[in-house]
Amino acid sequence: MRISALAERTGVPLATVKYYLREGLLQPGILTGATQARYTEDHVHRLQVIKALTSAAGLPLQKVKVILGLIDDPGGDLFSALGQAVASLPPYRSDSEPEYPRARALLERIGQIYDPGYAATAQLEHALEATEEAGMGMTDERLQVYAQQIRGIAEFDLQRMEGSELSPIEYAVLGTALYEPVILAMRRLAHQDIAAKRLGPPG
Amino acid sequence: MRISALAERTGVPLATVKYYLREGLLQPGILTGATQARYTEDHVHRLQVIKALTSAAGLPLQKVKVILGLIDDPGGDLFSALGQAVASLPPYRSDSEPEYPRARALLERIGQIYDPGYAATAQLEHALEATEEAGMGMTDERLQVYAQQIRGIAEFDLQRMEGSELSPIEYAVLGTALYEPVILAMRRLAHQDIAAKRLGPPG
Repeated sequence: MRISALAERTGVPLATVKYYLREGLLQPGILTGATQARYTEDHVHRLQVIKALTSAAGLPLQKVKVILGLIDDPGGDLFSALGQAVASLPPYRSDSEPEYPRARALLERIGQIYDPGYAATAQLEHALEATEEAGMGMTDERLQVYAQQIRGIAEFDLQRMEGSELSPIEYAVLGTALYEPVILAMRRLAHQDIAAKRLGPPG
Repeated sequence: MRISALAERTGVPLATVKYYLREGLLQPGILTGATQARYTEDHVHRLQVIKALTSAAGLPLQKVKVILGLIDDPGGDLFSALGQAVASLPPYRSDSEPEYPRARALLERIGQIYDPGYAATAQLEHALEATEEAGMGMTDERLQVYAQQIRGIAEFDLQRMEGSELSPIEYAVLGTALYEPVILAMRRLAHQDIAAKRLGPPG
């Protein structure tokens, strides 16, 4: 397809497509003449990834570049590349305090790897600190319920990564950025459903 | 305690405590002299709620006021008050399109109430739209797994609301604002734990 059709197919403005080409985020088309190029389904796919990262996940282009670089070349250590890619998603937390005592205690309690180098460890520490400051710290009972249910989701996510048409990095980054808002909205709606059934129908 | 002790206990700057008093967010202390007042554990608690809403949840003071108003007077219909209070938390979505076809289909599929008036319905619609645009729409299998696991969390949340020392509105708002980041961080860490066990140890 021509570049105009590519823009139309993906809903990305033509000027933006050209900008991505200049910046090297989108691979060049196949030249079919002195001033014309042809674009394929691979280009459509790449634009969908960029669009999801910029508009749905709200990432700055600089972070998108890091992720695309990891998609194109994850290197020999896929585990590290996955960690780096997901760490490019918000929230961004960096601390001089490298210990994260609350996150460590929680992860040890549920038998998970504790690694202060994971971006999500700092994220968990801050989230737990906020619950404690509000007098709503995680009880052991809440932790066990949450951990078990979340594990069920995460196991499914990883199983589906293996069968996905997406590369592991694409799947991990997009699956984090795109399914997190779904999960939170579904939890709020489950609360309303359960509350409606207990407190009587709405309205 | 004196106002200076109140500020110290809660970690809220004295000038901010005085501002909340002037704005009526914090109830006045008990006068013990012409220019002195005494503050109680109720004041500590209220400041903790305000602090959680402003700093952990990142709410503007205008939204905090709405929530505090509902905490102080939920009115006769607790279900509506809960909905209004949680709708004061981000993300804020309003649309001219009042139908939300994706959210409706999902909620009908899992047998939950569909109400386009719930703020989280619009939130879910947008989240689902983003997954589809990226070619990662929710499969039925993913939906069933997510719905079941999230239901387990939500059932627990509601059970604990009944035994909580907090008012239902406080519990619902803080439990939404504070546990959402915990859930997301725990899911990311569960992914890393499972991936590490499959792909070999990190580092």
